[in-house]
Amino acid sequence: MTERLNVAVIGAGYWGPNLARNFRASAEWNLATICDLDIERAQGVADGVGGVPVTSSLDEVLADPSIDAIAIATPARTHHPITLAALEAGKHVMVEKPLADERHRGEDMVARADEQGLVLMADHTYCYTPAVLKIRELIAEGALGDILFVDSVRINLGLIQPDVDVFWDLAPHDLSIIDFVLPDGLDTTSVSAHGADPLRTGKACVGYLAMPLAGGAMAHIHVNWLSPTKIRQMVIGGTKRTLVWDDLNPQQRISVYDRGVDLASVTKSASTVSRDANISYRLGDTWSPALPEREALGNVVSEFAAAIREQRPARTDGEAGLRVLSVLDAARRSLAAGGAPAPMILDIPVRSAA
Amino acid sequence: MTERLNVAVIGAGYWGPNLARNFRASAEWNLATICDLDIERAQGVADGVGGVPVTSSLDEVLADPSIDAIAIATPARTHHPITLAALEAGKHVMVEKPLADERHRGEDMVARADEQGLVLMADHTYCYTPAVLKIRELIAEGALGDILFVDSVRINLGLIQPDVDVFWDLAPHDLSIIDFVLPDGLDTTSVSAHGADPLRTGKACVGYLAMPLAGGAMAHIHVNWLSPTKIRQMVIGGTKRTLVWDDLNPQQRISVYDRGVDLASVTKSASTVSRDANISYRLGDTWSPALPEREALGNVVSEFAAAIREQRPARTDGEAGLRVLSVLDAARRSLAAGGAPAPMILDIPVRSAA
Amino acid sequence: MTERLNVAVIGAGYWGPNLARNFRASAEWNLATICDLDIERAQGVADGVGGVPVTSSLDEVLADPSIDAIAIATPARTHHPITLAALEAGKHVMVEKPLADERHRGEDMVARADEQGLVLMADHTYCYTPAVLKIRELIAEGALGDILFVDSVRINLGLIQPDVDVFWDLAPHDLSIIDFVLPDGLDTTSVSAHGADPLRTGKACVGYLAMPLAGGAMAHIHVNWLSPTKIRQMVIGGTKRTLVWDDLNPQQRISVYDRGVDLASVTKSASTVSRDANISYRLGDTWSPALPEREALGNVVSEFAAAIREQRPARTDGEAGLRVLSVLDAARRSLAAGGAPAPMILDIPVRSAA
Amino acid sequence: MTERLNVAVIGAGYWGPNLARNFRASAEWNLATICDLDIERAQGVADGVGGVPVTSSLDEVLADPSIDAIAIATPARTHHPITLAALEAGKHVMVEKPLADERHRGEDMVARADEQGLVLMADHTYCYTPAVLKIRELIAEGALGDILFVDSVRINLGLIQPDVDVFWDLAPHDLSIIDFVLPDGLDTTSVSAHGADPLRTGKACVGYLAMPLAGGAMAHIHVNWLSPTKIRQMVIGGTKRTLVWDDLNPQQRISVYDRGVDLASVTKSASTVSRDANISYRLGDTWSPALPEREALGNVVSEFAAAIREQRPARTDGEAGLRVLSVLDAARRSLAAGGAPAPMILDIPVRSAA
Repeated sequence: MTERLNVAVIGAGYWGPNLARNFRASAEWNLATICDLDIERAQGVADGVGGVPVTSSLDEVLADPSIDAIAIATPARTHHPITLAALEAGKHVMVEKPLADERHRGEDMVARADEQGLVLMADHTYCYTPAVLKIRELIAEGALGDILFVDSVRINLGLIQPDVDVFWDLAPHDLSIIDFVLPDGLDTTSVSAHGADPLRTGKACVGYLAMPLAGGAMAHIHVNWLSPTKIRQMVIGGTKRTLVWDDLNPQQRISVYDRGVDLASVTKSASTVSRDANISYRLGDTWSPALPEREALGNVVSEFAAAIREQRPARTDGEAGLRVLSVLDAARRSLAAGGAPAPMILDIPVRSAA
Repeated sequence: MTERLNVAVIGAGYWGPNLARNFRASAEWNLATICDLDIERAQGVADGVGGVPVTSSLDEVLADPSIDAIAIATPARTHHPITLAALEAGKHVMVEKPLADERHRGEDMVARADEQGLVLMADHTYCYTPAVLKIRELIAEGALGDILFVDSVRINLGLIQPDVDVFWDLAPHDLSIIDFVLPDGLDTTSVSAHGADPLRTGKACVGYLAMPLAGGAMAHIHVNWLSPTKIRQMVIGGTKRTLVWDDLNPQQRISVYDRGVDLASVTKSASTVSRDANISYRLGDTWSPALPEREALGNVVSEFAAAIREQRPARTDGEAGLRVLSVLDAARRSLAAGGAPAPMILDIPVRSAA
Repeated sequence: MTERLNVAVIGAGYWGPNLARNFRASAEWNLATICDLDIERAQGVADGVGGVPVTSSLDEVLADPSIDAIAIATPARTHHPITLAALEAGKHVMVEKPLADERHRGEDMVARADEQGLVLMADHTYCYTPAVLKIRELIAEGALGDILFVDSVRINLGLIQPDVDVFWDLAPHDLSIIDFVLPDGLDTTSVSAHGADPLRTGKACVGYLAMPLAGGAMAHIHVNWLSPTKIRQMVIGGTKRTLVWDDLNPQQRISVYDRGVDLASVTKSASTVSRDANISYRLGDTWSPALPEREALGNVVSEFAAAIREQRPARTDGEAGLRVLSVLDAARRSLAAGGAPAPMILDIPVRSAA
Repeated sequence: MTERLNVAVIGAGYWGPNLARNFRASAEWNLATICDLDIERAQGVADGVGGVPVTSSLDEVLADPSIDAIAIATPARTHHPITLAALEAGKHVMVEKPLADERHRGEDMVARADEQGLVLMADHTYCYTPAVLKIRELIAEGALGDILFVDSVRINLGLIQPDVDVFWDLAPHDLSIIDFVLPDGLDTTSVSAHGADPLRTGKACVGYLAMPLAGGAMAHIHVNWLSPTKIRQMVIGGTKRTLVWDDLNPQQRISVYDRGVDLASVTKSASTVSRDANISYRLGDTWSPALPEREALGNVVSEFAAAIREQRPARTDGEAGLRVLSVLDAARRSLAAGGAPAPMILDIPVRSAA
């Protein structure tokens, strides 16, 4: 067995304890330290995982040559400076979603990691759940056929965040999943965002994102902090089958419906009287694959270690994070323009030859 | 008891038999004739309700002085000419949704009916279901408080219509309901429509409509012909309570959640550090009102008779139909503009003094 | 095409109209007459299906040589005399469930039909639904393995019947289905019935039936008139898979779970310390077969015609009806004995060689 | 503030860690030690709650005069000897369900605690959940009226226990809840038990319990280790309303239906022709009370402390545990008698005057 990698968790707020627990439980990692400006909060997290050193000094962490990597779970606006400092110090970096608070900062982060030859990983946790891994696999093997539409709903009574709107709070989940499972990832040209702030909180609490996908397909996301009921559902329609992922139904998270509209030779018949005759329904079986019960974040930290050791991009690398960020950036511009579609801008730096 | 009114049903296709059955069962109406260009189809409907005269001549129907009113269940593009001819002949008119296939034609219909002092009613059947009547009542009495958002989903594996897209096929239901239950009706300034036609059928099969409402609120509609699962759900969020209408759950169609976000003095504290402290959750009881089981269309034909007898607009009058049509018109323009918001145009003719 | 068979429907109450409609719609049958002591009620049913002769005289019906068969939808206590008279007159007979109100009368009916060489069919309508036909097929082909248990729940707010308790009103459905789908039918030796009449109506409104099946398996039925929620669910557990039939879920009526307990070499290890190690779980996929939408009663009348023409017992013949009746009879005795198991008595007359 | 009470947790298996965590978190208690024959297992639990002394010697625990109370989470067959030794040593005792493995041992335990004037509490955890506390409250205040029936279902794919059957494993939950919420507790005269062991494991894996309650009412419990789907539902029907508790629906655990059968003057009219007219349906509103999210076991340890300090029986005292045990005992006799009802034997010792 190779030696364990040393990691520091930066940020002891909401997500930090989960990172700490999973690094601690991993055979790949040694959780070297927990860093937070609030040293007591850091200590609280350290106590929860059984005696890990703490510090309030990021400089100290980065100056420590034994540290191989850091995992950042701080507010989004700090991702850029912390990541740059860490890369400068030669550390691999995993960043909480969203990658940054501005697209150009994300681009900067990806470019720097690339220059340094270091791993920059986006912690898109959902992508490592058994359900999403299965969805990706099913799509990759062609079980759904060509993708026709993706409709994602993520709504519940949610805490109104002080610094971000509902798009930046919730949609990164849906976006990172769509980017992960579709063969071409988040391949859109423009984003239309419609939001409402009916409680006058200063930010959208109800939001909708519409994105055309290649081939006439479309992705749509509904995020909402004001819904009394909780729904987390994604429908992925394909030419062969349609998949419904209901994340709140542990007994049947994924259903694959062999139902759909069959369009025989539509092109030919579109203008003929007999056109209707070419449309038929398929009402086939429904199938729900068994899913293992595994904690996604355990898979995340394993992938981070593997990417470092194998000197390859992580499955959800900085570029994946940047694609998500670019959609959020376009959404912000669309909102500012009253809902008009905003072009998706995605400047991914060319990876220099190794 | 006053004498029965005589009505002719025009069109013996999908909806005509339902109209015929309900006029036949009503104590207010005498179903005088069923008219369809295809006389055999008319006869089929007549047989189903027990011996009603049939004809293939609309002129004949309109020339008959004993006929008080007609109910039109023909394709949308024929609504305008049939209605105008009927109004010209002094008949009251009920029209299937949508009111017409073009906004300006709907305006014309409303103006003509107004000039003639005749009833022009939109058959917005859903508005007469026990569920929607109850929703309207609850909102009117203030049970929900001010409306924050409306989110409507109407999706299932649907027949791809030869002449209309999914917006014109399904959204009139949602639009007519929203128009009916909100205190100010469909009071929007612009419509953004996003559609997808991934099967290359020549029309959108997946569609989303976003509309700002007064006071920062928002309405959104999702219609879809390609979904393997069937959902008919509308969420109406208010400052006091939120209502969920699940039309496919006969055991609990309407749920009123006394849950929400309470924002104490948001205006004052929006820029203070203590702002978060002013947000709190209400997790109160849920309540589901009992609903009578009644056929909506029975209520529709009663309302048509009452409006004629009382010389008043129907609850869902031509103007309501025109508001729905105006949203569809704006949606068409938004689609053509790639999803950019299109202004809502609504020229309702001034009702001349009686 | 052979000539149509002539049938008379006896009884124009709750079920009669459904029989009339399906005989009327069948290409196998000519609905010759509708017979009810209340001639107006008979006329009402006749009008509903479009002009069928009516009569209030059963004798007249039975004396008519053109009548091939009768379908009885009268109260259970009249099934025996009407059936006997009809068999005497050489008519084939289909009887509403339950076959009779007393077991010995049912035996008599089966024996007489056998003697006369006439078809006696039990109208176990549920057995002809697409769902139950599929369940029978799945069990027959071994998809579930050996049957371990059957648990059936049929509860809702039901009309308290004037003449029968909840067992006789609802359980015939469950019993006839179990008899139909299990390879050995309703093969039990005793029945325990537990009932409650907490409203003092003079009959059980809440009921439970427990029946041991061959091989250590067990069937259990819960019927209830007092439940505010409606449940119609049957679980059939097998050694290989378990099937859940939820008749109120049109989107997924049947689910086949490849989940269960695997007991490796239980016999050998039952007394060893390592026994636990031999138990393991299977958490496999779930599968929901597509079902056609077809009216069961249409299949029933077709089967009645086929049995007559082919001179063979119907799939749900008098003996099937008698097995159901025998369980109800044993349940009655168990109830009278305070819930003690009552032996199942089933004297099926030996069918004489043709 | 009074001083904390000292408690030892006996048994570090499945339930012990939960007890340890809750005693540790309570302001009423000092978790003094964790005792298990397997000292490593005890240490594991101690580590999980942060440094609590461990021991493998029960004698040592009982000899320690600073220990006020013990909480027993060992196999059922050891409850009697441990409890007796602890009472002898002057310790208060809380016991995991079931109280003991034999009814007479439970009686002995209750009698000894009574003699010693010490608290003997049954850890009926479910009774301290917000849902069950609310149900008890609703019944107590008359919201349901008189109780007509209780139907409880607790089924899922469960571990086949090495030492107990499905009745002893699962039914104590249902029984303790029924005992807790009904005004007269588990007031039955006999128990009928029907079980199946179709996998030949040597014990029932599927089980049904039927118990008459006072006034013609009835309780029924279905427990099952072989069900692929998980259901935890209790229906409590009353003369006024019916309550459904679905423990797996966090969004609406409790629903109170104002639906039912109204029987006007049944006694008078039972034999008259007009009887049917006296039955009518109530289809009123449904109401779902908000429930706080609180861990039940925290309430359990608080109640244990309060009972000790206030020198009163716990809300779920030894006698409650004994009532549950007596039903299990009767069920065992009924099973042995092939399902015949077995009389409920309940010898609760007279509490001697203080």
